[in-house]
Amino acid sequence: MKCLFCDIANNPKTRHTVYEDKDVIAFLDIHPVNPGHTLIIPRLHATNIFDIPKPTLARIAEVSKDISERLRDRMKVGGVSILQMNERDGDQDIMHYHVHVLPRMTDDWFHRIVTVEASKVQESTNPTKEELDSVAKILR
Amino acid sequence: MKCLFCDIANNPKTRHTVYEDKDVIAFLDIHPVNPGHTLIIPRLHATNIFDIPKPTLARIAEVSKDISERLRDRMKVGGVSILQMNERDGDQDIMHYHVHVLPRMTDDWFHRIVTVEASKVQESTNPTKEELDSVAKILR
Repeated sequence: MKCLFCDIANNPKTRHTVYEDKDVIAFLDIHPVNPGHTLIIPRLHATNIFDIPKPTLARIAEVSKDISERLRDRMKVGGVSILQMNERDGDQDIMHYHVHVLPRMTDDWFHRIVTVEASKVQESTNPTKEELDSVAKILR
Repeated sequence: MKCLFCDIANNPKTRHTVYEDKDVIAFLDIHPVNPGHTLIIPRLHATNIFDIPKPTLARIAEVSKDISERLRDRMKVGGVSILQMNERDGDQDIMHYHVHVLPRMTDDWFHRIVTVEASKVQESTNPTKEELDSVAKILR
C-alpha cells in the first residue's frame, strides 16, 4: 500500500528538510498553521504511537526539542505546541507516525480555536473524586 | 515560587495516579476532555520543552505510549491525541512541563473544534515552494 510519508522519506527532493539523521526526518508542513510548522517522522514506516518502537519515539521527542529551540531562536516565535494524532478517531490524517511542531504566536487563530472554544466545553466536565478514582483504577 | 504540579508530584493524595516511577508521574486531568484524559509530568520541576532534560523528555514519550495502549486496551477508546504546550503564547497554562494524553472518540467535541474549524483556516495557508525553501533554510 502506498504511504505518502514513506514516499517523502525516500525522496528528499519532495520535501523541505529541516533535519535528518539515520532514523528520523523533520520537514516543513506544506499547509503550515504558522510559518515554520514542522513535521517529524520516523524514516521506517510506523503507523502511529501504537506500533512505533520506543527508541524511535524517544529519538523523535529529542528532535522535537531541537526543532522547538530553533523556532524560538531563529524565528523568534513566542511559543511552541506539540501535537501528535493517532487513529482516525484521534484525527490522524496520514497513517505514518508524525509529530507536529507548531510555532505559536500571541492570540494566533490556533489559540482562538483550541483555547477559547475548548475552555467553554471543558469547563463543563467536572467528574467527582469517586468517578476519577474508578477511572484511575482501570488505568493503573 | 509555588508550582501546582510540583505540589501534586510531592503529594500523592492530591492526585489520581495512573503510573509513577522515579522520574515521571502520570495522573488524571480533573477536567477531562474525555474520560481517561491523563497528564504526564517529570517529578523534578522543568518549565517546558525548552528546559526539560532530553532523557526525561524521552522517558515521558515512552510512558505516553504505555498510557495510550492502556486507554485503547482497557477503556476501548478509538484513538489518542498527544498535546504538549509551551510558553504562554503556546497556550501553556501550568508552567511545569506536562503532556496531555487525550482519549478520543468518533466525532467527539475535540474533533469538531480542532478539525472542522482548523481545516477551514489551514486550507487558506498555501505558501509557495520558494517561501517554504527560505523557511527551511533558516531552520536547517
